[in-house]
Amino acid sequence: MRDLMPEFDADEIGAEMLQFMEELFPICRSITGDGVRETLRRIGERIPLEIHEVPTGTQVFDWTIPKEWNIRDAYIEDPQGRRVLDFRESNLHVVGYSVPVDKRMPLSELREHIHTLPDQPNLIPYRTSYYSETWGFCMQHEKLQELEDGEYVVRIDSSLEQGSLTYGECYLPGETDAEVLISCHCCHPSIANDNLSGIALATRLAEYLGGLSVHHSYRFLFIPGTIGSIAWLALNEDKVQRIQHGLVVACVGDPGQPTYKRSRKGDALIDRAAALVLGHSGQAHRIVDFSPYGYDERQYCSPGFDLAVGSLTRTPYGEYPEYHTSADDLGFVHPESLVDSLRLYLQVLDVLENDAAYINLSPRGEPQLGKRGLYPAVGAQGVGSELMARLWVLNLSDGRHSLLDIAERAGLGFPDVKEAARVLLDSGLLRPASITDASP
Amino acid sequence: MRDLMPEFDADEIGAEMLQFMEELFPICRSITGDGVRETLRRIGERIPLEIHEVPTGTQVFDWTIPKEWNIRDAYIEDPQGRRVLDFRESNLHVVGYSVPVDKRMPLSELREHIHTLPDQPNLIPYRTSYYSETWGFCMQHEKLQELEDGEYVVRIDSSLEQGSLTYGECYLPGETDAEVLISCHCCHPSIANDNLSGIALATRLAEYLGGLSVHHSYRFLFIPGTIGSIAWLALNEDKVQRIQHGLVVACVGDPGQPTYKRSRKGDALIDRAAALVLGHSGQAHRIVDFSPYGYDERQYCSPGFDLAVGSLTRTPYGEYPEYHTSADDLGFVHPESLVDSLRLYLQVLDVLENDAAYINLSPRGEPQLGKRGLYPAVGAQGVGSELMARLWVLNLSDGRHSLLDIAERAGLGFPDVKEAARVLLDSGLLRPASITDASP
Amino acid sequence: MRDLMPEFDADEIGAEMLQFMEELFPICRSITGDGVRETLRRIGERIPLEIHEVPTGTQVFDWTIPKEWNIRDAYIEDPQGRRVLDFRESNLHVVGYSVPVDKRMPLSELREHIHTLPDQPNLIPYRTSYYSETWGFCMQHEKLQELEDGEYVVRIDSSLEQGSLTYGECYLPGETDAEVLISCHCCHPSIANDNLSGIALATRLAEYLGGLSVHHSYRFLFIPGTIGSIAWLALNEDKVQRIQHGLVVACVGDPGQPTYKRSRKGDALIDRAAALVLGHSGQAHRIVDFSPYGYDERQYCSPGFDLAVGSLTRTPYGEYPEYHTSADDLGFVHPESLVDSLRLYLQVLDVLENDAAYINLSPRGEPQLGKRGLYPAVGAQGVGSELMARLWVLNLSDGRHSLLDIAERAGLGFPDVKEAARVLLDSGLLRPASITDASP
Repeated sequence: MRDLMPEFDADEIGAEMLQFMEELFPICRSITGDGVRETLRRIGERIPLEIHEVPTGTQVFDWTIPKEWNIRDAYIEDPQGRRVLDFRESNLHVVGYSVPVDKRMPLSELREHIHTLPDQPNLIPYRTSYYSETWGFCMQHEKLQELEDGEYVVRIDSSLEQGSLTYGECYLPGETDAEVLISCHCCHPSIANDNLSGIALATRLAEYLGGLSVHHSYRFLFIPGTIGSIAWLALNEDKVQRIQHGLVVACVGDPGQPTYKRSRKGDALIDRAAALVLGHSGQAHRIVDFSPYGYDERQYCSPGFDLAVGSLTRTPYGEYPEYHTSADDLGFVHPESLVDSLRLYLQVLDVLENDAAYINLSPRGEPQLGKRGLYPAVGAQGVGSELMARLWVLNLSDGRHSLLDIAERAGLGFPDVKEAARVLLDSGLLRPASITDASP
Repeated sequence: MRDLMPEFDADEIGAEMLQFMEELFPICRSITGDGVRETLRRIGERIPLEIHEVPTGTQVFDWTIPKEWNIRDAYIEDPQGRRVLDFRESNLHVVGYSVPVDKRMPLSELREHIHTLPDQPNLIPYRTSYYSETWGFCMQHEKLQELEDGEYVVRIDSSLEQGSLTYGECYLPGETDAEVLISCHCCHPSIANDNLSGIALATRLAEYLGGLSVHHSYRFLFIPGTIGSIAWLALNEDKVQRIQHGLVVACVGDPGQPTYKRSRKGDALIDRAAALVLGHSGQAHRIVDFSPYGYDERQYCSPGFDLAVGSLTRTPYGEYPEYHTSADDLGFVHPESLVDSLRLYLQVLDVLENDAAYINLSPRGEPQLGKRGLYPAVGAQGVGSELMARLWVLNLSDGRHSLLDIAERAGLGFPDVKEAARVLLDSGLLRPASITDASP
Repeated sequence: MRDLMPEFDADEIGAEMLQFMEELFPICRSITGDGVRETLRRIGERIPLEIHEVPTGTQVFDWTIPKEWNIRDAYIEDPQGRRVLDFRESNLHVVGYSVPVDKRMPLSELREHIHTLPDQPNLIPYRTSYYSETWGFCMQHEKLQELEDGEYVVRIDSSLEQGSLTYGECYLPGETDAEVLISCHCCHPSIANDNLSGIALATRLAEYLGGLSVHHSYRFLFIPGTIGSIAWLALNEDKVQRIQHGLVVACVGDPGQPTYKRSRKGDALIDRAAALVLGHSGQAHRIVDFSPYGYDERQYCSPGFDLAVGSLTRTPYGEYPEYHTSADDLGFVHPESLVDSLRLYLQVLDVLENDAAYINLSPRGEPQLGKRGLYPAVGAQGVGSELMARLWVLNLSDGRHSLLDIAERAGLGFPDVKEAARVLLDSGLLRPASITDASP
């Protein structure tokens, strides 16, 4: 039995995660470029991280690694020479992957390159154009409307050139090379919940697991969305089949309720573990079916791989009004939510680490728990979950039911069932099941 | 890809279907006789129809083709010589298969041969006695109560003699000899919804399909209820196994909500196709389980055949107060309902014609839809059903999921999924699955 | 076809069952001892009962038969010499298996041996301590609070010695040695619903079945809870595999709604039969999943046996406030509930006795029921459950569906389906299925 739920000071951990997000927030990330490199460097200060560079032009399945994009500055000046938009105030102001521009143009022409949110007029939208060369700005709709006609100076000091796509990989070997994949995207600029929260959680998780003796090996990927997971899959096809379970980490810091999105398989162990943990979390939550839209689970669950990878988030992509706007900032993220999410991840991993089948060594009738001090002495009314867990583990430990199966059928939380199994093992009433016990 | 949903003018088609019903309405049909022949003759003016005559006395499984019944006239005269009931006013006035009678009798004796509906006193019931020789009249209960005591003249000028049972068959060959059966009963006299509506719909459907290139062969049966389908099954056992899917057409013109009754199998393709179409029809509807009562699905779904034949109706038999009464007349049938039913039938057949499995040729990760113009360029919020359908088709086109499977899992309508498959085929991202792709 | 539902006078049977409970109520039973012997002697006056004695110290699986306990008297006297508690008033006053004691002690010391129910201050709790040697009293909380400080005389005149565990077994041979097990615990002292009601029902059931010709053999066990079923299983391992179905009888006399607790298998024939009978009983009821707590189903459903044994009770153990208190007395039991429970048991056994598959000898199309007088002559509206049952039996009698399967799918009660099968057998339309008809 392994215990993946270390004692920790929730306030301290939450503050520490948020602090790391604050550190990363100002960096201008994209799917390539120095912002990603700087982000990975800081993650690497905390966990052992291997940095990979995949050159522009590399073919990865149906895709090609794009040119590398970097940006130094960008602004718009109005006819009076006032900066009415400045990249230094927010890196969301520039459409990601904008080609360089240095021009004068009338407002009417400029308007065609400006994205706003008329329904959220005081927010800056987040926009990108990775695979179609163009340039553009994003700004508050209310500011756009204040602009006067006239000739504007438009400048984006960016570069789009041969280079590489950068991603980080942290591999924690366990007792077996059966792997758990933890993947998070690191391609958004100053957006907090999506997905600095995921980066902070994954980093913290790797820190913890690095200090434990675990059954599975754990692979953490910090990758740009879509192209990053496709690149990793294309370049690591030999490793893919080791992945037994996986979670895509995103949007784990907002105050919304936890949401688990099932893998394409729908009833994989990871799906059942997450459902069990959320079902016993004591909080409102949602479990939604897989769909081929969202984050990198789209790639891991593509039909050629069909990995058992789900996604555990709080409010999912696109379902909160701050999504992909300047309002998804550090104020939108709560340390309590970060810590709660971290705890849920650890509880799910605890199921994966400890799920196993056992054999009741006294299977005919109940064994006499009383003489082993495992049963209340004077027959009273009612029965607690501790005794129920012991009775369920004994009743179903026939080699065909794992602890997760038992918890599901008994309606008990995994920790209760695991503890019951531990006690019964210690009492000599159970032994671990072996392959030869398996029966249909 | 085949498109079974031709452009049509709903008003025109509805009016035309109703007009055909008006033409057939006055004819006195039964399970045999000249009324059926005349009905089939008129259907045969519109579609290629083979007329079959099965002689009286022919053994068809457990049944024997009965004598042929024809009727010329019938009436009741009261003691004052007034016709208080006249067959020429409504052919429902005579119990179907009444033997000839020409008698005088007191009202008290006559009453035993008169059927009324005390709860619907102004309606004439529809009654038959095919397999037990008797005679009788049906009339409005309120009229019966007005009759005075005395001697009545009772006359039914009918014949019940050696002859034959007549049915019509329209076979439309398709690319394969896998068949779709469309069956409707044509044995009711002046009853509109049950089942002139079914005759009009089936006739119109055969007209359409006759002009299209289709995968399945289509067999339309216009048969007397029960004995007709039993006769066809008994005389065509060699053809039965070609029937892959089927629908019994009845009661398709009333204003009630569409109702699909599943085949005995319960989860046959026809059952799933009908459920999908109704589920995305945007209208209230019902899906009910098979039961061995109703129309000719009883025979097609008998255990010796167990065909995948369901029934798509509006309000089912026996569930509307006008059922089997003179109130089931042309005024009870609405052209909008007829056209809506026709459209649902075509949509269901469209699923059968186009359901197939495809293989994603770029199954590892998503293919890059953007470079093929199949993905919105600048990343925005939300995703439309067009893109979702493409992503679902790609994700599930692994040889184990047909388009119907995909539509069901994706919660999308069949047309969306079919269109996505068409676009992806055109882009070279899919190919049709072949037998060797099949895997469990 | 067998009919297990004899005509009976419900009032008479109910009164008779209650009278037998009244006879047994005063006896002080425990898991061993003369109270059990006396109880079994009286059961044996009504049905053929074999009495077994299992000596103290016998190893039965993980358990050891305990010493035999008997008690003659017990009381507490206060400092004024008044008996404030007297075993002769209620045998619940002494904790079951209390060792002898004859002492004086201050109230403070005595208190540690007194059990009360503070929330039900006027009731005596029922407590035992079979496997841990101690002594104790049970009393009304309100009486305990009236006791004054001082020196008390405490006396329990019991014995705990080498002896045996006694149980009764009634075996009724049927046409086959496939067995139905009916098991009830007989170890509670003056507690009426739990489980004199079960003893009365099982006794009455054995009386009935003894007079009938039945397919199964029936084995009735009157055993002390837990240790009794474990002892029987351990000493009769050769017989265990004959048990095809079983029911644990307990708490069948209270006015609560019937409750069926499924076997560990969950979908065994007994589970389906009980669900069908309750579903058509016309009364509110509950069906609950197996759990490894409760009565002796815990032992029969232990993983080494996994027998198809459920439990049909009224309000289950622990769910009524009178449970394991002096309020579970004869006034809590209603003769109507006893008779209703008996009827439900007989109906469930009727399913087990008569469930079988038949073959429709006219499977292609419906057979012509009319010519056999099995169909209403003049086609009318609606269809009764008698005709529906015939049509369903014909439709599903393909060798793959038993009468229970048919009843479940048709939504009909078992008696209707059984009667339809009987009529169709008599008409030569069905034959019993044989092994060679079986197909997947």
